[in-house]
Amino acid sequence: MAARTTRGDAPTEAGAPGAPAVAAAHAGPAAPATIASIAAEAGVSIPTVSKVLNGRPDVAPETRSRIEEMLERHQYRRRRQRPTSAGQPLIDLAFHELDSAWSIEIIRGVEDAAAAAGVGVVLSELGGVHRPPQEWLDAALARRPLGVLLVLSNLDASQRHQLESRSIPFVVVDTAGEPPEDVPTVGSNNWNGGLSATRHLLALGHRRVAVISGPSDVLCSRARVDGYRSAHDEAGVPLDPSLTRYGDFYVDGGYEHGLALLSRPDRPSAIFAGSDMQALGVLRAARELGLRVPEDLSVVGYDNLPLTEWIGPALTTVNQPLKEMAGTATRMLISLARGESIPNRRIDLATSLVVRESTARWEG
Amino acid sequence: MAARTTRGDAPTEAGAPGAPAVAAAHAGPAAPATIASIAAEAGVSIPTVSKVLNGRPDVAPETRSRIEEMLERHQYRRRRQRPTSAGQPLIDLAFHELDSAWSIEIIRGVEDAAAAAGVGVVLSELGGVHRPPQEWLDAALARRPLGVLLVLSNLDASQRHQLESRSIPFVVVDTAGEPPEDVPTVGSNNWNGGLSATRHLLALGHRRVAVISGPSDVLCSRARVDGYRSAHDEAGVPLDPSLTRYGDFYVDGGYEHGLALLSRPDRPSAIFAGSDMQALGVLRAARELGLRVPEDLSVVGYDNLPLTEWIGPALTTVNQPLKEMAGTATRMLISLARGESIPNRRIDLATSLVVRESTARWEG
Repeated sequence: MAARTTRGDAPTEAGAPGAPAVAAAHAGPAAPATIASIAAEAGVSIPTVSKVLNGRPDVAPETRSRIEEMLERHQYRRRRQRPTSAGQPLIDLAFHELDSAWSIEIIRGVEDAAAAAGVGVVLSELGGVHRPPQEWLDAALARRPLGVLLVLSNLDASQRHQLESRSIPFVVVDTAGEPPEDVPTVGSNNWNGGLSATRHLLALGHRRVAVISGPSDVLCSRARVDGYRSAHDEAGVPLDPSLTRYGDFYVDGGYEHGLALLSRPDRPSAIFAGSDMQALGVLRAARELGLRVPEDLSVVGYDNLPLTEWIGPALTTVNQPLKEMAGTATRMLISLARGESIPNRRIDLATSLVVRESTARWEG
Repeated sequence: MAARTTRGDAPTEAGAPGAPAVAAAHAGPAAPATIASIAAEAGVSIPTVSKVLNGRPDVAPETRSRIEEMLERHQYRRRRQRPTSAGQPLIDLAFHELDSAWSIEIIRGVEDAAAAAGVGVVLSELGGVHRPPQEWLDAALARRPLGVLLVLSNLDASQRHQLESRSIPFVVVDTAGEPPEDVPTVGSNNWNGGLSATRHLLALGHRRVAVISGPSDVLCSRARVDGYRSAHDEAGVPLDPSLTRYGDFYVDGGYEHGLALLSRPDRPSAIFAGSDMQALGVLRAARELGLRVPEDLSVVGYDNLPLTEWIGPALTTVNQPLKEMAGTATRMLISLARGESIPNRRIDLATSLVVRESTARWEG
């Protein structure tokens, strides 16, 4: 049977419409792949193919990967099935890592939207890895979730196909700013966030503004730094490249870069941090160096975590609407699972600046 | 058939051992209740009883409550069944409310312990109510979880019985200090927490120490206040009852009580807050009144959330090992689901004081 690679006429299980009327001449009017045809081609029994589709572990690894390869080559698509559990349908929510206040905002957004739709949520942490381990995916396949929601994780091509062949939709809550192509995602406008934070500082009179962003290989970090640069261009303020730092998004990153930047004789009068946690680290570095915020140093965070309005000084920050992003992604996933068409496969929610106490006019 | 009320000889589904050799004279050697005997007594079909057991919604409410009542009266116990989903077993984790940094510590503890046992976690938020709604319980029954883990939620007697009759174990992560009787719980020693926080402040020379605890009808609040009182008794320091305040555990509670206490002419020199979030509120109140921490005011929090070491000043706090409590409860639940006996049905993990920057010697 000829390999089929076009996405538009993906064959489905028996009962789907026959071959398209106009078939490519070189391929011939191939019949859609079925469990039976896959089993015959692989030289295994139909139940073996079925076991693989259901994520059951009792299939030899070699057999399994051969069957997966055929499912992919024939663009096999199982018809959507009822979840095996008689009751409430489930979605899978997977984080590459659960960390403190940031994750809970996303969890709350998912819980609210799922509960409103009568859907349960299975929560997994992938142990800090960005590519979900196969055991996690097998467990998810076996429970036949309505769909899969990923936070800061990316499926590889083979894993994507495993979900596609079981007709399990997936959506990415894209906090990294780098949506995998063709995958429905909900993100936020990171470039705008960087722009508005920096405009605010420049408008206050700051001329030496540093940025501590997340890792340089995470796209959202670069987008925020580009927004920071554009604000400088716009205002005609020259950039000092030594004031741009990349670190991780956690407190320590902000603390260490903050100490380094603020110990310089030509220290910046303002720091735009890539996350609220980093901003906490910057505030701590300032305290240790005896610098008052905002009198001696203005600080802007990113995320608008609930705690930021309570710390001292209350933090000026960019509101990244994590809860709303998660809720939107959940509703998108449930729509896809119901076979509804979604008008946009890539949605960015707007960021906005929340001005509090950690920024002030600079007369320097 | 005579009602059976003793717990020790709870009858099980057909196939269980027969009636005990020595039966109470008034009851006679009654046969264990079965789905068939319940159906016959209720005048319904066997599948109807089965539907009720499986949490299926398509049974008339009146019929359903009649059957539940009979299941309870006969102390019916279904033999433990395999989960319906072919794959990974699941536990249900239910919070009465998901709030910020506090909840995520518990979620992380559950995730770690569940992942280590190859068990998935279904997370639910009960919308702020302490008694789980029936819809949530029905959904849980229908997916036949290995077990149910509750955080700050209590099942009523009927809901407990619904789980018991399906042989689904449940464990409470008891952050409230009030374990339902007979229910396996993991808590922490709140009285000791209050004692050690207050001893620390008294040893620093403070003689007017206020306490802002959680709601007075939550037992852990009262236990912490009693520890506070005992520390005063022990040190021979008289108590001013007007320095004991009960509020909620959130930032606002600490802020409002903090403002009231610190505006008094005879203001306290130290405040022991019932949670780290309350302590954040107290710190804010102090800032607004121009009081320096720790020079003018010492503050102790409770919980040791990760952020407390980063705020300024870093918070002296009582470590409530939320992550470990959740992990211990999860392992206990999985043991119960496996039919293993657990040596202790009530475990309190130790609290400990973590001294940081928000407390100092008082020379007043």
